[in-house]
Amino acid sequence: MDDKIYGRNPVIEALDANRQIDRICLQDGLRHSQISKITAMAKEKRIPLRFVGRKKLDELAEGGNHQGVVAFAAAHAYSEVDDILELAKKKGEPPFILIADELSDPHNLGSIIRTANAAGMHGVIIPKNRSVSLNSTVAKVSAGAVEYIPVARVANIAQTIEILKQKGVWVAGTDLSAADYHYDADLKGPLAIVIGSEGKGISRLVREKCDFLVKIPMIGEIESLNASVAAGILIYEAVRQRS
Amino acid sequence: MDDKIYGRNPVIEALDANRQIDRICLQDGLRHSQISKITAMAKEKRIPLRFVGRKKLDELAEGGNHQGVVAFAAAHAYSEVDDILELAKKKGEPPFILIADELSDPHNLGSIIRTANAAGMHGVIIPKNRSVSLNSTVAKVSAGAVEYIPVARVANIAQTIEILKQKGVWVAGTDLSAADYHYDADLKGPLAIVIGSEGKGISRLVREKCDFLVKIPMIGEIESLNASVAAGILIYEAVRQRS
Repeated sequence: MDDKIYGRNPVIEALDANRQIDRICLQDGLRHSQISKITAMAKEKRIPLRFVGRKKLDELAEGGNHQGVVAFAAAHAYSEVDDILELAKKKGEPPFILIADELSDPHNLGSIIRTANAAGMHGVIIPKNRSVSLNSTVAKVSAGAVEYIPVARVANIAQTIEILKQKGVWVAGTDLSAADYHYDADLKGPLAIVIGSEGKGISRLVREKCDFLVKIPMIGEIESLNASVAAGILIYEAVRQRS
Repeated sequence: MDDKIYGRNPVIEALDANRQIDRICLQDGLRHSQISKITAMAKEKRIPLRFVGRKKLDELAEGGNHQGVVAFAAAHAYSEVDDILELAKKKGEPPFILIADELSDPHNLGSIIRTANAAGMHGVIIPKNRSVSLNSTVAKVSAGAVEYIPVARVANIAQTIEILKQKGVWVAGTDLSAADYHYDADLKGPLAIVIGSEGKGISRLVREKCDFLVKIPMIGEIESLNASVAAGILIYEAVRQRS
């Protein structure tokens, strides 16, 4: 797991969220109000600062747009599924969860975590195997959302769905074979939405565990959407119905 | 403008759609059913084939996943705004248009064009300046949708909005300052949805030309969505209302 955070806003978000940071590397001689803010926050939190050349930062950020700052975070702490259910309870809301089944693209997972937080979801669940993990690209693309929304990593998505169902959560899968469009299904109440992998969609085993399947209407020539766009459409249809 | 198309499916899509191809480079000695299909289609269409080494293809695709094939297309033909309105008329549907105001990320524009086609929109309008153009990354990310949905490039988005309004199209902008949520607005009838740039949203001039503004509810800590996800949510809320 990659534990670097780069870019000014992601680093400020991480500091704001009290994420454990081991050290921060700043570009030597760079002046910017956000860099001053990072320096001040780091000093207050007693986080060691290192001033390095631009080339060194380019290397650390592996070509990413670091804007003069790379932070080394302690490995991101995954949550448990129970933490997610507890958060819903604490807020007095029916659980509203996203399950990302075997996503391989960090941009998709990051974007989905961002959308899940923006929509007020209580957590995101990913599998331990055959899935991108919470690396620095995911954190950056999530625009800091990984600091706010619990992400649980489970050994077996099908088993987790069973547990969620036992706790009264309805599980909606997305599949081209579904009879109903997403906006014709009831997405109110305790709900987990399952998004499948970019290439193959939801695996058969997981699909069979779902309480119901929905599809997004495909009206043009193109037969599928980007995974993070599909997730956004489903999540916000649920937000509409719940409002 | 980059006029290379790489990857087996994108090249087959381009050939299927009768896009004008100048020549196709194939990896020497590579055997695959889709490569054979490309060879056959190219021969039928009298498109010159060149067999080159893998290294050369890597170079041509600039690190993209070419899968053994790079096609050189004639510069992608932009459509006119009138072509978009004409397509709506031909289909007997109220115009349903996406305006992308100053997007800089080809992944966002490509994903938006893919969603626009999937949702049965009649066209996408982008500005000539301060916007990514229809390059090969946009084409690839669009999953072939650029071959099906007209994309018009205009000198001045604000003026184009005026013209659309004169033709009876309602123009909806997205802005955090909007009073109404997107699902509380009427998105039926002749409609153009305006999506703003990744960093700054819609420019003031364009915002002032819109008939009405909507916002997507932000319930968590994160205050904005990825531009292509936001576009997907708005476009499919309109699809729901129009269904």
